[in-house]
Amino acid sequence: MTEADFIAALRTLPLHPGARGLTDDTAVVGGLVMTTDTLVEGVHVLSTDPAADVAWKLVATNLSDLAAKGAQVEGILLNLPLSDPVWDRDLLSGLAEVMTAHDVRLIGGDTVSLPPGAARVLTCTAIGRDAAAPPRSGARAGDSLWVTGTIGDAGAGLAIAQGQAGPSSLLAAYRRPQPRLADGRALGPVVHAMMDVSDGLLIDAARMADASGLAVAIDLAAVPLSADYIAFAGDDRLGAATAGDDYQLLFATDRPPPVAATRIGAFAAGAGLSLHADGVAIPLPDRLGWLHDVPSRLR
Amino acid sequence: MTEADFIAALRTLPLHPGARGLTDDTAVVGGLVMTTDTLVEGVHVLSTDPAADVAWKLVATNLSDLAAKGAQVEGILLNLPLSDPVWDRDLLSGLAEVMTAHDVRLIGGDTVSLPPGAARVLTCTAIGRDAAAPPRSGARAGDSLWVTGTIGDAGAGLAIAQGQAGPSSLLAAYRRPQPRLADGRALGPVVHAMMDVSDGLLIDAARMADASGLAVAIDLAAVPLSADYIAFAGDDRLGAATAGDDYQLLFATDRPPPVAATRIGAFAAGAGLSLHADGVAIPLPDRLGWLHDVPSRLR
Repeated sequence: MTEADFIAALRTLPLHPGARGLTDDTAVVGGLVMTTDTLVEGVHVLSTDPAADVAWKLVATNLSDLAAKGAQVEGILLNLPLSDPVWDRDLLSGLAEVMTAHDVRLIGGDTVSLPPGAARVLTCTAIGRDAAAPPRSGARAGDSLWVTGTIGDAGAGLAIAQGQAGPSSLLAAYRRPQPRLADGRALGPVVHAMMDVSDGLLIDAARMADASGLAVAIDLAAVPLSADYIAFAGDDRLGAATAGDDYQLLFATDRPPPVAATRIGAFAAGAGLSLHADGVAIPLPDRLGWLHDVPSRLR
Repeated sequence: MTEADFIAALRTLPLHPGARGLTDDTAVVGGLVMTTDTLVEGVHVLSTDPAADVAWKLVATNLSDLAAKGAQVEGILLNLPLSDPVWDRDLLSGLAEVMTAHDVRLIGGDTVSLPPGAARVLTCTAIGRDAAAPPRSGARAGDSLWVTGTIGDAGAGLAIAQGQAGPSSLLAAYRRPQPRLADGRALGPVVHAMMDVSDGLLIDAARMADASGLAVAIDLAAVPLSADYIAFAGDDRLGAATAGDDYQLLFATDRPPPVAATRIGAFAAGAGLSLHADGVAIPLPDRLGWLHDVPSRLR
């Protein structure tokens, strides 16, 4: 069963009205915003990634979903495996770091033993409040598509984590993503649609367009790259836009945004994603980003 | 690192006031009760347990924590692995059964791929509302200790699931526990302390006494056994009281409870757990219930 089939089947279960039909990364229940993400060793993180970085990423990726709803962070629940003492201690140290950095408090959780040799599986559930909660489905024809920060750094960082030589800034982008909480707070009340870029800029933009019932055209030449990325990968904007793990905010608005961001495209009536650069149409790549049904790609 | 060490370390992280110092199975945030539990294949469920039963148990055990707080069920979040198509379909079918049986709605979740051969790890986070939320720490000297239903059936069911011959009712107690939601609603406003029996009657009673700063004495002869249990295991009350997975409600009150339940002990000033039967003191067994640091015991 593909992930899409599985999620389609989940949609046939009784759904909470706050679940938004399972079309969003977050749910809204009783004034609280909720999101949950699971990291699997060997799938979402490398087994060689330091435990402290795994802890950081686990929490930061969930905070990123809260950022995309413009929420204040209320706290987190953690479902963690007991592992070897060194790994456990490093994990706890990374949790302390990310929670202190973003003023996050622990609400609860569960600890479990794993069978010998099992891949570590870690879950974080993040709770937010006071969220404008723009949906991913709210883009309007005529809106521009914007993104914060730079794209592709984490993808390059993954290559570095896997053994290539490269700057530590890119490795940090992969291992220690920075959730855009302040940007999200400023953007939440004024944008029409918002989500974070987790699976890849192109696939996530296509999902926003699809959820909004619109077409989106992206100017690949406008996709913002860091100097370190260009030094590492050259001008590979297509690689950057399909790499994922960026945890930048992607949003639709017809007004200039109140935070630093880059305009990379536009929504129009229709359907689907199209690419262009300097006025020239560019064929879509075979893969727009990370799909769970492509196990060969480590994420 | 033992689970106790790990949880002690988690307590040094910034804690949400609703976390109750991580001394309870649930947290209270913004008027909502939250609880989360993870099931690991080969640890909490057998790899031979049918997927539909795993789904049932995953949700039911979390609902049991809500029941212990006297909460109305608001909904659940699910973190699920993609597995093989047959297992996935059976899992979804079991989810539909347990959610329909207990009027539970899906709020959100996450689906992940696992590396080949990895143990399945499933997490459920349950959200409740309108909870009296009696803590496990509220027992008072002079209170009686009560428990709903019968004890030990699930432990016998585990032996049956592992190959022994025995009645299907006991197997069902292990694979399809029934969260005591209605009992919990009735008890929540009138009891001093409440929790569900998940790791074993003795260890959970000892935890309630410890959290309440009291001693508890349990009359082993009063521990309620089912006819099927006695037919299967004889009068092994100690086995029943240390087996776990019962998901009955354990509560402290100085008044007759408003639901069917059995008085099994009493709280007094002091500390620790003691056992007696028909007026005779009984030594404590080496193991009071399930501990995550005893990996030889499958749960």
